[in-house]
Amino acid sequence: EAHLSFGGTQGVYTHTSSAVSGEMELSVYVPPQADTLNTGEKLPVLFYLSGLTCTQENVTGKGGFQQTAAELGLIIVCPDTSPRCTGYAGEDDDYDFGSGAGFYLNATESPWSETYKMYDYIVDELPALIAENFPIDTDRMGVFGHSMGGHGALTIGLRNPDLFKSISAFSPIVAPSLVPWGQKAFTGYLGKNTDAWAEYDATALMKVGHRSAAEILIDQGTADPFLAEHLQPELFAEACVKANQPLQVRMQAGYDHSYFFISSFMADHLQHHAKTLMSG
Amino acid sequence: EAHLSFGGTQGVYTHTSSAVSGEMELSVYVPPQADTLNTGEKLPVLFYLSGLTCTQENVTGKGGFQQTAAELGLIIVCPDTSPRCTGYAGEDDDYDFGSGAGFYLNATESPWSETYKMYDYIVDELPALIAENFPIDTDRMGVFGHSMGGHGALTIGLRNPDLFKSISAFSPIVAPSLVPWGQKAFTGYLGKNTDAWAEYDATALMKVGHRSAAEILIDQGTADPFLAEHLQPELFAEACVKANQPLQVRMQAGYDHSYFFISSFMADHLQHHAKTLMSG
Repeated sequence: EAHLSFGGTQGVYTHTSSAVSGEMELSVYVPPQADTLNTGEKLPVLFYLSGLTCTQENVTGKGGFQQTAAELGLIIVCPDTSPRCTGYAGEDDDYDFGSGAGFYLNATESPWSETYKMYDYIVDELPALIAENFPIDTDRMGVFGHSMGGHGALTIGLRNPDLFKSISAFSPIVAPSLVPWGQKAFTGYLGKNTDAWAEYDATALMKVGHRSAAEILIDQGTADPFLAEHLQPELFAEACVKANQPLQVRMQAGYDHSYFFISSFMADHLQHHAKTLMSG
Repeated sequence: EAHLSFGGTQGVYTHTSSAVSGEMELSVYVPPQADTLNTGEKLPVLFYLSGLTCTQENVTGKGGFQQTAAELGLIIVCPDTSPRCTGYAGEDDDYDFGSGAGFYLNATESPWSETYKMYDYIVDELPALIAENFPIDTDRMGVFGHSMGGHGALTIGLRNPDLFKSISAFSPIVAPSLVPWGQKAFTGYLGKNTDAWAEYDATALMKVGHRSAAEILIDQGTADPFLAEHLQPELFAEACVKANQPLQVRMQAGYDHSYFFISSFMADHLQHHAKTLMSG
């Protein structure tokens, strides 16, 4: 499936993932600049990680990234949020656990540990797969995302700063160990030993020395119904200040948690990544 | 339901329609300029008519009109495509007849004639309803749409040039009397007397003297799978040339029938309407 969009190509693809042992769907936007590359020339790429309940389809249809990606010459990759159709009991029961809620970690609790390896999928498998099939410059990769995907972007970016050189997030979960969404998911996927949780907690990672060389950008709507209970960006902001990590948190007055919020600031996020990835 | 979007408000509303005798959902985008109007000052408004199978939700989420509407100060109203839940036999059987396929006409065949009065709904009821609830300037209204909604925009605009001063369409059905989608719908809603069809056929209307004072804009993708069988914009173009109706048909190479096509040229359409509606 491929659609022309702002002069580039918005594709949707399915592949068999070794990391999660199953079929995975993802979308890839290739901007018009790809048609006129010189030999060996490649384009920077951003990986967008979606939030709870989403597939690639939500942000691909509603995120509005294609216009600015076409202007800047960015490839945008949007993976799914979990393995699908595993057959595990309870897989589809909750919106915040199981299908659509992979939390970008490697599960260690049975049965999830068999296939819920979204961390490995995003960090190891996906960049290699995309590099085989699209003209991406693997030295110019950034990661961003929304809500659970903002958590994914922060943790994956902070743990792999040589791989992902720029990070941003829309209304991210920044301290999953301390909030209900994260506690439920981490208990189910990682067990009750909270030591294991710290590897997947952006605020905890910041406290033990993980860094991004570039400034991190976070946009957060003040009318977001999940702000006080699940998101609490101030916890991450405080850790960044103490760690001297450059961070810009923009509290956007009146905006909520929806794609209307994401699309309103999408262009800013692409510009943020381009500033780092295209400065060389 | 209301979301902040590009500084304006994207609302979704339900009301009881007298024209179609039932509940109707619609979306209204109000740009940020509405917050600082002087007394008596009003904003131009565009009515967007969606295509087969759609509700207001598709274009509201995927059309990408909010950014340019916010820049230009346009109110955008997106109604549904048919009455819903009428209980008529076969209402939900076909994607191209009944629910989601109202064709913006007043049905005369039973039972559809009871409620399928989408022409009256768009022309009479909706502008009055919107004017009661939002600061629209009823002297500066435009109409546009996609596919079946492009047909609606052309026919409603041409029959009511004093009401809708600007018209545009994405991949419209321009000669429904001559193509399968239109023939099926018109037979079902209007009966077999094809004389009644001409009132809802843009090409036929152009031939008998209906006009728009402003240039009409049509964008049509060359990779649109419905182009040859259902759309055939050349039929309308030929009638416009003969009638001296200013028309610009832009054949967009490689684009299909999807919202990826619509969103790629949405800004151009809003600019097209603004040229007429904001020139005074």
